Amino acid sequence: MEKESPRIVVLGAGFGGLTFCQTFHHAAARITLVDRQNHHLFQPLLYQVATAGLSAPEIAQPIRSILSDRLNVTVLMDEATDIQLAEKQVVLKQSALPYDYLVLALGGMTSYFGHPEWEQFAPGLKSLDDAIKIRRRILLAFEKAETETDPAVRERLMTIVVVGGGPTGVELAGAFAELFRRVLKRDFRRIDPSHARVILIEASPLVLSHLPLELATSGGEQLKKLGVEIRVSTKVKNMRDRWVELDNGDTIAAENIVWAAGVAASPVSHKLGVELDRAGRVKVLPDLSIAGHPEVFVIGDMATVIDKDGKPVPGICPAAMQMGRYVAHLIEDELAAPTPSHAPRAPFSYWDKGTMATIGRSAAVAKIGRFEFTGIVAWAAWLFIHLIFLVGFRNKLAVLLQWAYSYVTYKRGARIVTGMSAELKRAPPS
Amino acid sequence: MEKESPRIVVLGAGFGGLTFCQTFHHAAARITLVDRQNHHLFQPLLYQVATAGLSAPEIAQPIRSILSDRLNVTVLMDEATDIQLAEKQVVLKQSALPYDYLVLALGGMTSYFGHPEWEQFAPGLKSLDDAIKIRRRILLAFEKAETETDPAVRERLMTIVVVGGGPTGVELAGAFAELFRRVLKRDFRRIDPSHARVILIEASPLVLSHLPLELATSGGEQLKKLGVEIRVSTKVKNMRDRWVELDNGDTIAAENIVWAAGVAASPVSHKLGVELDRAGRVKVLPDLSIAGHPEVFVIGDMATVIDKDGKPVPGICPAAMQMGRYVAHLIEDELAAPTPSHAPRAPFSYWDKGTMATIGRSAAVAKIGRFEFTGIVAWAAWLFIHLIFLVGFRNKLAVLLQWAYSYVTYKRGARIVTGMSAELKRAPPS
Repeated sequence: MEKESPRIVVLGAGFGGLTFCQTFHHAAARITLVDRQNHHLFQPLLYQVATAGLSAPEIAQPIRSILSDRLNVTVLMDEATDIQLAEKQVVLKQSALPYDYLVLALGGMTSYFGHPEWEQFAPGLKSLDDAIKIRRRILLAFEKAETETDPAVRERLMTIVVVGGGPTGVELAGAFAELFRRVLKRDFRRIDPSHARVILIEASPLVLSHLPLELATSGGEQLKKLGVEIRVSTKVKNMRDRWVELDNGDTIAAENIVWAAGVAASPVSHKLGVELDRAGRVKVLPDLSIAGHPEVFVIGDMATVIDKDGKPVPGICPAAMQMGRYVAHLIEDELAAPTPSHAPRAPFSYWDKGTMATIGRSAAVAKIGRFEFTGIVAWAAWLFIHLIFLVGFRNKLAVLLQWAYSYVTYKRGARIVTGMSAELKRAPPS
Repeated sequence: MEKESPRIVVLGAGFGGLTFCQTFHHAAARITLVDRQNHHLFQPLLYQVATAGLSAPEIAQPIRSILSDRLNVTVLMDEATDIQLAEKQVVLKQSALPYDYLVLALGGMTSYFGHPEWEQFAPGLKSLDDAIKIRRRILLAFEKAETETDPAVRERLMTIVVVGGGPTGVELAGAFAELFRRVLKRDFRRIDPSHARVILIEASPLVLSHLPLELATSGGEQLKKLGVEIRVSTKVKNMRDRWVELDNGDTIAAENIVWAAGVAASPVSHKLGVELDRAGRVKVLPDLSIAGHPEVFVIGDMATVIDKDGKPVPGICPAAMQMGRYVAHLIEDELAAPTPSHAPRAPFSYWDKGTMATIGRSAAVAKIGRFEFTGIVAWAAWLFIHLIFLVGFRNKLAVLLQWAYSYVTYKRGARIVTGMSAELKRAPPS
């Protein structure tokens, strides 16, 4: 009797899960890739959809289409509800999948630090739908301000609060400030959008605090030059609809509040019965498997990995891709062995290629290897690297076109409001 | 005392209203343009958004941005609720606008021929939101079919009914058939999307019946070659969720039904107290004004205009643009006259540049002047003309890129599902 082909189940088609499927080349194994979306999302450019620079399809690709020629990969649009480690089975909403190897790559979700009720007031930015919702609300606020006669209401409509001064918060705040000051500026007759306020709230004493001090300082200065009001060492104490209270007692009336502060791992991690960190990330072994289950791996933002130098591996795309590649080679090797077995395994090792954040037109900070850059050089590097890594030739070309267009014309290519019926459900201001 | 500048209110920023604002050049007049969307929509390519070929922002432009340098034009995102002809005033949701001239250009909406309850089962295609909803539902149907084990349910999931064999219905049916047979074909493992059924229902004996007989016949044949099942001389008798009954007694179980059959004028036309045709379109005078109110004009799809040869002017973009231009010049002339007065006026005259419909890759029909084309020549003409008329340089370039990409790779650039939360509200099949 022929040996049955080994079954590999991959949950999540983000950078980790997708890289795994693209790297894995043992033809006899059958892979099932499960994601609740039909598309792979290029998260690093999501803030540009939220700020009307790019359209949603330009940073997304159908998962099926990316893996079209990988005939041993089956893609299912579904969601895992349970993981039965003892039975080696994943329970989906519509079926159950037995596995020989399981790769968990479900990424993170927005965390409100014990205040889930704030979600309704301050949407996070994790999916295309989040981005389209934020874009709609920001653009609508200016449309309403143009017809508003009460100066206090007009001020609220033209105020936006971004909570969290990490890369996402900084990129959002910078892109909003440019949108108001450079793009919308000429298009209104009764209001002046360049007077709109963008307020960035950060709990630590510095924005971009994961970067070396000089880069973080430069990032903050570049952001201020764009007109962003930065409030460091400041926490959100309370929140209501269109209203924020800070821990120093200040209150801000803002039509839009965007949450870019916390990330928590997918709740599926709680099903594994293993140790998690505070954000719900799975504490994996050096080979990225979980204790007692060498056939189960957790990669990307869902895992907390301590590198050989004792430092945690950052939750960024290159790290997730490296983990996907590592696990793919590891499983390939085990399947290729004359007698398949699980041990011993060389540990995962993270290769730090650097980190970067863009702030605005010709403004960015970047650390590449030992080198640090700010301003236009960092910005050019940022553009180049993001274009290279964007999945799909058409998307690269389309995004390049959009960026060239915006650079030359000071316009944005996706300044449209869609999903108005959803908006009508938002409670009117009280 | 200086004479007050005349106030012109334009309702609707479609082809008619926008062309009016772009043509009108009497600097002293103040124009207020009101639309409930923030964008001008290039309707002729809307079906390509619904069929995953183009992204929404590629066929839309912010109205403010188009009219940015027209300093005497104020754009308001609002909706007219009443028109008070005697007071010369338009009532919006948020304010009231007095006018000296009023231009009504609100276009049409989907009509269900006395069956408004069918709307929930068969969405129409008038806005970007409609298109995104149809795209989502079509793509989801195939995702569900891939995980479905019941053959009858799988067949329903892979069946789509398009009601109405005019240009929109034909373009939709052709684009669906190509999407299934050429684009999705390679990307599934358990189903074969090229077996999906596209059924086009048309009440008259011919699809594209507004075209000369040979063109209409050719259009139908090209459509059949793509695999579309055409049922002419057939009417929808009854409809339920995911189920259509035809007047010959046949019933079809279809996950998706798209309504491309009827157009009715904006309900605002009923506020005018003048004669309407069966579709609610305003019967205007030869100068496009309404009886008794030479200061009120109705243009585009909202008006029914009989040309000097006795034939009705068709409800297509070039006609709306010609009307917008005609009324702009007419009002300019009246305002420039030493003693402003309303009479006499030369009648509007429609210049028929032709008509065309695309069916699929290298397949189309076109009538340009006295010349009739089919196949690849008509298709090339269609592409060229639509690119020329698409508003905005960036959009032209982006759409050209998308078309070239699709032509070469047999892929589609916007095959993504967004708005899933809206979808969860759709009732499950009973």
